[in-house]
Amino acid sequence: MKIAVIHGSTRKNGNTEYLTYHAVPKDRGTHIYLRDYNIQPIVDERHSETGFNEVHDDHKKLINKMLEHDTIVFSTPIYWYSMSGPMKTFIDRWSQILRDPDFPHFREELKKKKIFLIAVGGDTPQIKGLPLVEQFNYICKFYEMSFEGYVIGKASRPGQIINDHKALSAASMLIEQ
Amino acid sequence: MKIAVIHGSTRKNGNTEYLTYHAVPKDRGTHIYLRDYNIQPIVDERHSETGFNEVHDDHKKLINKMLEHDTIVFSTPIYWYSMSGPMKTFIDRWSQILRDPDFPHFREELKKKKIFLIAVGGDTPQIKGLPLVEQFNYICKFYEMSFEGYVIGKASRPGQIINDHKALSAASMLIEQ
Amino acid sequence: MKIAVIHGSTRKNGNTEYLTYHAVPKDRGTHIYLRDYNIQPIVDERHSETGFNEVHDDHKKLINKMLEHDTIVFSTPIYWYSMSGPMKTFIDRWSQILRDPDFPHFREELKKKKIFLIAVGGDTPQIKGLPLVEQFNYICKFYEMSFEGYVIGKASRPGQIINDHKALSAASMLIEQ
Amino acid sequence: MKIAVIHGSTRKNGNTEYLTYHAVPKDRGTHIYLRDYNIQPIVDERHSETGFNEVHDDHKKLINKMLEHDTIVFSTPIYWYSMSGPMKTFIDRWSQILRDPDFPHFREELKKKKIFLIAVGGDTPQIKGLPLVEQFNYICKFYEMSFEGYVIGKASRPGQIINDHKALSAASMLIEQ
Repeated sequence: MKIAVIHGSTRKNGNTEYLTYHAVPKDRGTHIYLRDYNIQPIVDERHSETGFNEVHDDHKKLINKMLEHDTIVFSTPIYWYSMSGPMKTFIDRWSQILRDPDFPHFREELKKKKIFLIAVGGDTPQIKGLPLVEQFNYICKFYEMSFEGYVIGKASRPGQIINDHKALSAASMLIEQ
Repeated sequence: MKIAVIHGSTRKNGNTEYLTYHAVPKDRGTHIYLRDYNIQPIVDERHSETGFNEVHDDHKKLINKMLEHDTIVFSTPIYWYSMSGPMKTFIDRWSQILRDPDFPHFREELKKKKIFLIAVGGDTPQIKGLPLVEQFNYICKFYEMSFEGYVIGKASRPGQIINDHKALSAASMLIEQ
Repeated sequence: MKIAVIHGSTRKNGNTEYLTYHAVPKDRGTHIYLRDYNIQPIVDERHSETGFNEVHDDHKKLINKMLEHDTIVFSTPIYWYSMSGPMKTFIDRWSQILRDPDFPHFREELKKKKIFLIAVGGDTPQIKGLPLVEQFNYICKFYEMSFEGYVIGKASRPGQIINDHKALSAASMLIEQ
Repeated sequence: MKIAVIHGSTRKNGNTEYLTYHAVPKDRGTHIYLRDYNIQPIVDERHSETGFNEVHDDHKKLINKMLEHDTIVFSTPIYWYSMSGPMKTFIDRWSQILRDPDFPHFREELKKKKIFLIAVGGDTPQIKGLPLVEQFNYICKFYEMSFEGYVIGKASRPGQIINDHKALSAASMLIEQ
């Protein structure tokens, strides 16, 4: 199994990362930190005559990297009850990839992927994180990816995640191999 | 009643805008199109020693504009079962505003606001748009804003929204005055 | 179009009924009031050696009646953020119908049905009624029924629904014919 | 800590019970099996002149029993994407208890309770069980009870729950003491 982890946090060594390493240790899998890359927001040109304009940033490189793996873990702090802005921007741009001649098999390749979600929030995340889980489920349904599981952790201040024993335990069991 | 509409669409004159003008006509209220402004993604520095770095973009200007109104309509196409990236980025940055000495009364002012949501999607939005509604509800709860109502429209290709008679009718009744 | 309305309210002439008659007038369609029938709770015997015991109540009669129609409207007050107990009991027993030799084509017949939901609650039903909507969606998905739309009304005291102009308007547009 | 478990399953020794005993062993706490009691459906008479009619069944006895404990675990198989009919009926009748002079402090007493939920379903319960979780959350909010956690297990045929290692592990950690 080849695992890629897409980290959506904008803060280094935060609670979400800590929890995620319980599922996929640092020295296992490919860890991609979106904050280290330049990803431009989508401009919806699906319906313009000339189609999408080429964007000069790191998005395609990251998509290629992601597609090399069969298991993809999305790891995001819960910002305002959804994924972080950088992760949303990363996924929004998939609409462009779907129409990019450089990625003729994007859908077919995603169909084979196993998806996991790890999210951490401070405000009753076990409940208020559920819309985020449902969104990921709908994204997976759209691409016919297999949504294999999720873990939601509770933490707000730096380091606080170590108190969420249940989430840490669940993370360590998340990806059965 | 002073109404501000925050438009999250990246496409001009799209379905979401069309539906939104049924709730708030172009010549009523203040229409803010996020795509016309420069808004940088949040960098979470809540826990860094020096706090948030000043960001030189249009975010503060838009927040000030928004706060001048008592009713705020969020209008967004449904991108991947949530709000558009630009709107997410706009809201993510509220975390910084909360700690900005230029906005000492941000929470208190938001408490008085009435919030409406208008969203348009192509993939069974009446169901798959519900996590987005729940997210807005949690955002409103956090700031103790009054979430007064929402309309979900169905459209994908340009102009298609004119066929969603139910949504158009609901939009025209959304904000009772 | 032949419409059956399944009324789940235990109170006669309540708010939910009033709203429902805006979608399907009393003299249109077949109105079934579950409170007028004897329906026993399910006893899960899917896995017992002898299978389900015959139950002597009105359930089969109502299922037969329901199946004669191509459009089915479920109308329920929101009791504790879900459908009423009588409606839940009515639907729970479908598990038994699925294994009843008297109904060899139950699934195939349901596949052709169009489903609508009308629900009325007193406690912010536009938000807290959404899990109920999602449940109905999953039920429809299971049987491959087409979930065509829903209306949520707000009312608590008798007669209060007349103030929910938006819901009344939406109900009158619910079933386009 | 005094724990009561309300079992909603209609089948003895089923998957839900098995999972629940990992959270609260048989010889710990008070286990109440709703299937062993007579509980009549609610008849909504909140608005009738004479109020609710006295119902001669076991409901009050069970409410009294429940109130003797400070921690209450609701354990239910997922029937049609919600709690079982018997559990729904048990909770629906709380509307009557709220107006019963025999229970003048029902709300005040519930406010002190800690609530847990254990649910087992066969059809992607980690996703399709979420509306049930949200419903319990809203019930807890209504009574200002503390919703402390939930576990969702996957099983359909008898005994299958033993394969859901994650749920069994989560159940054994559910109630920290």
